[in-house]
Amino acid sequence: MKHFFYLFFVFAISFGYSQSIQSPSNTISVNFKLSASGQPSYAVNYKGNPVILESTMGIKLKGKSALDANFEIVDSKTSTFNASWKPVLGEQASIVNHYNELIIALHQKETNVKINIIFRVFDEGVAFRYDFPKQMELNYFIISDEVTQFNLTDNHKVFWIPGDFDSNEYVYNETKFLEIDNEKIEMNNGIGVKSIPGKYVVQSPLMMKSATGIYLNVFEAAVVNYPVMHLNADVTNYKLTANLVPNAIGDKAYLQTPCVSPWRTIMVSDDARDIVSSKMILNLNEPSKIDDTSWIKPMKYVGIWWEMHVGKSTWDYAGTQNATNFSTIPVASGRHGATTENTKRYIDFAAKNGFDGVLVEGWNTGWEDWNGNWKEEVFDFITPYPDFDLAGITAYAKEKNVKMIMHHETSGSVANYERHLDRALELMKKYNYPAAKSGYVGKIIPRGEFHDGQTMVNHFNFVARRFADYKLMVNSHESSRPTGYSRTYPNYIAAEAARGNEFNAWSNGNPPMHETILPFTRLLGGPMDYTPGIFEIKRSYYDKTKTEQVHTTLTKQLALYITMYSPLQMAADLIENYEKYPDAFQFIKDVAVDWDESKYIEAEPGDYLTIARKTKGAATWFLGAITDENARKSEIKLDFLTKGQKYKAIIYEDAKDADWEKNPIAYKIRTIEVTNKSKINLSLAPGGGTAISFEPIN
Amino acid sequence: MKHFFYLFFVFAISFGYSQSIQSPSNTISVNFKLSASGQPSYAVNYKGNPVILESTMGIKLKGKSALDANFEIVDSKTSTFNASWKPVLGEQASIVNHYNELIIALHQKETNVKINIIFRVFDEGVAFRYDFPKQMELNYFIISDEVTQFNLTDNHKVFWIPGDFDSNEYVYNETKFLEIDNEKIEMNNGIGVKSIPGKYVVQSPLMMKSATGIYLNVFEAAVVNYPVMHLNADVTNYKLTANLVPNAIGDKAYLQTPCVSPWRTIMVSDDARDIVSSKMILNLNEPSKIDDTSWIKPMKYVGIWWEMHVGKSTWDYAGTQNATNFSTIPVASGRHGATTENTKRYIDFAAKNGFDGVLVEGWNTGWEDWNGNWKEEVFDFITPYPDFDLAGITAYAKEKNVKMIMHHETSGSVANYERHLDRALELMKKYNYPAAKSGYVGKIIPRGEFHDGQTMVNHFNFVARRFADYKLMVNSHESSRPTGYSRTYPNYIAAEAARGNEFNAWSNGNPPMHETILPFTRLLGGPMDYTPGIFEIKRSYYDKTKTEQVHTTLTKQLALYITMYSPLQMAADLIENYEKYPDAFQFIKDVAVDWDESKYIEAEPGDYLTIARKTKGAATWFLGAITDENARKSEIKLDFLTKGQKYKAIIYEDAKDADWEKNPIAYKIRTIEVTNKSKINLSLAPGGGTAISFEPIN
Repeated sequence: MKHFFYLFFVFAISFGYSQSIQSPSNTISVNFKLSASGQPSYAVNYKGNPVILESTMGIKLKGKSALDANFEIVDSKTSTFNASWKPVLGEQASIVNHYNELIIALHQKETNVKINIIFRVFDEGVAFRYDFPKQMELNYFIISDEVTQFNLTDNHKVFWIPGDFDSNEYVYNETKFLEIDNEKIEMNNGIGVKSIPGKYVVQSPLMMKSATGIYLNVFEAAVVNYPVMHLNADVTNYKLTANLVPNAIGDKAYLQTPCVSPWRTIMVSDDARDIVSSKMILNLNEPSKIDDTSWIKPMKYVGIWWEMHVGKSTWDYAGTQNATNFSTIPVASGRHGATTENTKRYIDFAAKNGFDGVLVEGWNTGWEDWNGNWKEEVFDFITPYPDFDLAGITAYAKEKNVKMIMHHETSGSVANYERHLDRALELMKKYNYPAAKSGYVGKIIPRGEFHDGQTMVNHFNFVARRFADYKLMVNSHESSRPTGYSRTYPNYIAAEAARGNEFNAWSNGNPPMHETILPFTRLLGGPMDYTPGIFEIKRSYYDKTKTEQVHTTLTKQLALYITMYSPLQMAADLIENYEKYPDAFQFIKDVAVDWDESKYIEAEPGDYLTIARKTKGAATWFLGAITDENARKSEIKLDFLTKGQKYKAIIYEDAKDADWEKNPIAYKIRTIEVTNKSKINLSLAPGGGTAISFEPIN
Repeated sequence: MKHFFYLFFVFAISFGYSQSIQSPSNTISVNFKLSASGQPSYAVNYKGNPVILESTMGIKLKGKSALDANFEIVDSKTSTFNASWKPVLGEQASIVNHYNELIIALHQKETNVKINIIFRVFDEGVAFRYDFPKQMELNYFIISDEVTQFNLTDNHKVFWIPGDFDSNEYVYNETKFLEIDNEKIEMNNGIGVKSIPGKYVVQSPLMMKSATGIYLNVFEAAVVNYPVMHLNADVTNYKLTANLVPNAIGDKAYLQTPCVSPWRTIMVSDDARDIVSSKMILNLNEPSKIDDTSWIKPMKYVGIWWEMHVGKSTWDYAGTQNATNFSTIPVASGRHGATTENTKRYIDFAAKNGFDGVLVEGWNTGWEDWNGNWKEEVFDFITPYPDFDLAGITAYAKEKNVKMIMHHETSGSVANYERHLDRALELMKKYNYPAAKSGYVGKIIPRGEFHDGQTMVNHFNFVARRFADYKLMVNSHESSRPTGYSRTYPNYIAAEAARGNEFNAWSNGNPPMHETILPFTRLLGGPMDYTPGIFEIKRSYYDKTKTEQVHTTLTKQLALYITMYSPLQMAADLIENYEKYPDAFQFIKDVAVDWDESKYIEAEPGDYLTIARKTKGAATWFLGAITDENARKSEIKLDFLTKGQKYKAIIYEDAKDADWEKNPIAYKIRTIEVTNKSKINLSLAPGGGTAISFEPIN
């Protein structure tokens, strides 16, 4: 073998080198190439046609020679992996992880540095990463740039948001690649902290569609001890290049061998369902590092939250949200949401309607002056307001068999949160809170760091591990978007990390197509706590002067429980609104949040999505169908149902004249009997949706 | 009164305004002036002669109008304060705090911002600070610069070190002001991380002496939520200007009104003893915020430490200090210092000789790869090496009535330390460690921050408070230099924060004059853990090839226990070295570390220092006298002793032929009987010292 490689090596020097690898079904082929000058590149074909043209690979280092050229081939290895694993919580009980792997071992002659490039080719896409083995010549190093390219073939349609280092909370733009331009988008969009590094920087995951009907998605998996990768778009040449988020002093990543980069992923298919249903990102992450996962449970919850968003109550006790901090001791305004009384009302409601948990935001001191001023010491995460009886509420919740969900808003002051984290988690254990929602609104402290930098990626992952130490679950809001770490730490039960439903309460909102794109982008990396279930769609319901609204019909809010996968799902609206529409509310009461199977029936990013899911450990099925601003009719085959079994199907659908803008609450509910031979005609209003529950009957 | 100020105010606009204030004894006079254009300035006279010429005052803000001009006088108030307070631990049982105060209230017309400048004039110096009251017009703000000037009268002699943002560990330079130049100093000085911002930036405290024999010291007090102030030296104009240490992105301080700057201090006297003995810095700090201080105890300690510095054993278990991290599981080298056996030996020694505590460095995992690579996760502060039996050692120490001193080396990774701090302190409580020595060797993480920035100042203060929560004491090494916070948190028992004795072990060391300067600079802000008591002066004792040495005689090492005040004092040498010189060691066994009274008998910065101190709660006195590289003879009156009382004086002095370089260990000990009428002739060798104990006899 040594001889073989020696010859090989000579060959490589003189003429370059190339090697191909195919996906298990041979639809995707990747060609790795080392040029005569030792520069590595790759290209991807799908069904024989190029989808990624020759694209450079490599890493630049601070104060050391770049690892992007002058390489020789040392070795190459291929192998096949095919196994399945069972997620603790998930869209399906079992996930198949099947890929062909190619490992290219490279050696840089003048520095004597060795790196490996590892490719994994799945049936729905390609992944590769840089692997830095332990070696004398490369111990500690600082990444100053990554030259990884994704060289596209054409001026595709793209669903993009700015590559903001601090926020994922943008509305998607659907344009041609050539039209990407951060300076042309609406910036009066409710986002508090914006750090957009340039006109042509977009976020990954980036969903695209070619004129020939090929769906492409560029993303990454297993971002651990590394910054988030955004993408520089060379709009005239249809080229994407990695844009790693810097730290306070401009460095990208501090590493020590042995180590690896995240996986760079390219999903490709001529069927959009292959992408939206893909488990490739999870598959590329490490298996669970938590041995006993019995305490990790799905949760459907209600809480004191939306009422603050619509201005009915306040997070802060004084009701001022007054950063001028003029009264040192806050005086109760009578408008505080997180009171003992209100909390007990939600506990009662949860108990009565079968919800697992109650979230209460604004329970702890600090909200009078928490936001917008880069303040370091805001919250201590342990001191309740005087009108929030922590012990009393814990006892009451226990009596009612309801779990309380903690809230940790950090206001971006991560240094402060880390200082208090052990104390905060001890408080949770003391008062039996099994999970917390965390928040990162505002500019990050340590100052100069971004939400998407290596420091913060490490923070979010650290928090998941620390919560796991205490057997606690965490749901982070305003974090960097997940890339599958919930496989490794399944207690990282959900995250927001995209524009959630809350923006519909007080900003220009989320246009009807928004929820048809998220499953192709944000959700690929893990569950999203989108907080659906808003029945009182229009803000004017609360305040005649307000024009904001949820950009869906009521039944689309129901359908989101299916189309927006999360094992943690909120019924976000107020108790009184659910009590007004008890028949529609029945779906939220019934719907499951953890699944044995998921069937992606129809999918087109930006247009529509229809998914059916079978409840984990039960025979019931649920279906959700959503559309964008266009009405939609569709005939759905129910062939996913168990053969020979009869089901009662309760169909929650838009009324005939329903419309997200003009008549959003109009819905009708009908019950029919179906089998797996049946078909159902869906009729979705503009911005509408349909939700169906299927219950086996004798 | 209103009318009066109105007239006043008109006057101020037209012609400027000035107001003077004197020290209680009228030796010092400060003149505040507001120019016709509303620019504030001050000047200081001493005994009728100018010592600080007209010097500008003010603050520059990021994104807001500077607060350095266009002011009007709103009000001015004078008052006198005279009271004394009792430090928990100290050089004296009671401290007088006597000053005259002038508060100037200023208003900036175009911004409507109000600030106060507060002067306090003591008999030994002047202090002033900026006070930012709560106001609508100034809530959150960022300081971008401070224009505070110290405009000197002449080309004074200066004892200076570079204004390094990361290190205080320099040898002092004694030059004319005009000769200040960071590019001319020896940089092969053992300092690992250097961040010198320019040729002419020096540290405060800056000790000076005029040609006319006036001693001047520019420093600061109560640095809380503010960066350290270094000084830009305009060498040709004899002018100093504040140089605030920036954060990672160049900002200086993030503040919210109401708030204050630290005090800027100018000590002045024609007697150097007034400066070296001054308690002005402590007086300018807030009183103790710890109610029950009964657990704060002085400590004399030994430990496993110097043996690593001289290369006899290692901090790390594997003995490699190998950052290449090649063996993941460290293999015992047999050279590890912090073993259970060695620790017990030190506990036995401490018990036998009356020491309170034993410090053990290198007890916890991580030392194989801890330094020099900006590594974030090094130590967890709770995991002992396999050869360090934490529980067994705790039990053994308890049996011997010896306290263990914890060691927390952070390697500069403050983010990591803060994440682990509660756990680390809980471990200390669990194993009965009453105090910890902390260390900050290396570049700071959060990356881009400096040891002397606001972030780190806040960290050091936070750590003191957190330790206080647990009733634990802390002694920080490589921290920013103290400015009196130990008055407010007396559990902040000591700090290093200057070039300690350790540099004598492995670098070009500390020249003989070093310890004659520190009390005029570093020690003004609080006790220093200098770690004196080295008997085996020369490194060649351990290794014939080594030429490093302590730059003192043995008896000067004894005298340092008196001249370098600290309630935490180490006997730093190895057990076997003390056992070789039991008669000299007797002084270390006898000497107190907490005092009722201190008499500064002779003082000249850079030349010599003689201090006598009376033991707290006992009738014994101790005297320490040190000199620089020059031999020195002096006759000391013992009039500080109690009248009519006889004392046995044991005099530890340099032998006739002693010399720090050629014959450092040569000493003699004589015992005489004395009263307060007696005189003693001191005879100090080059780099020498004398130590005396006075024990009352019948």
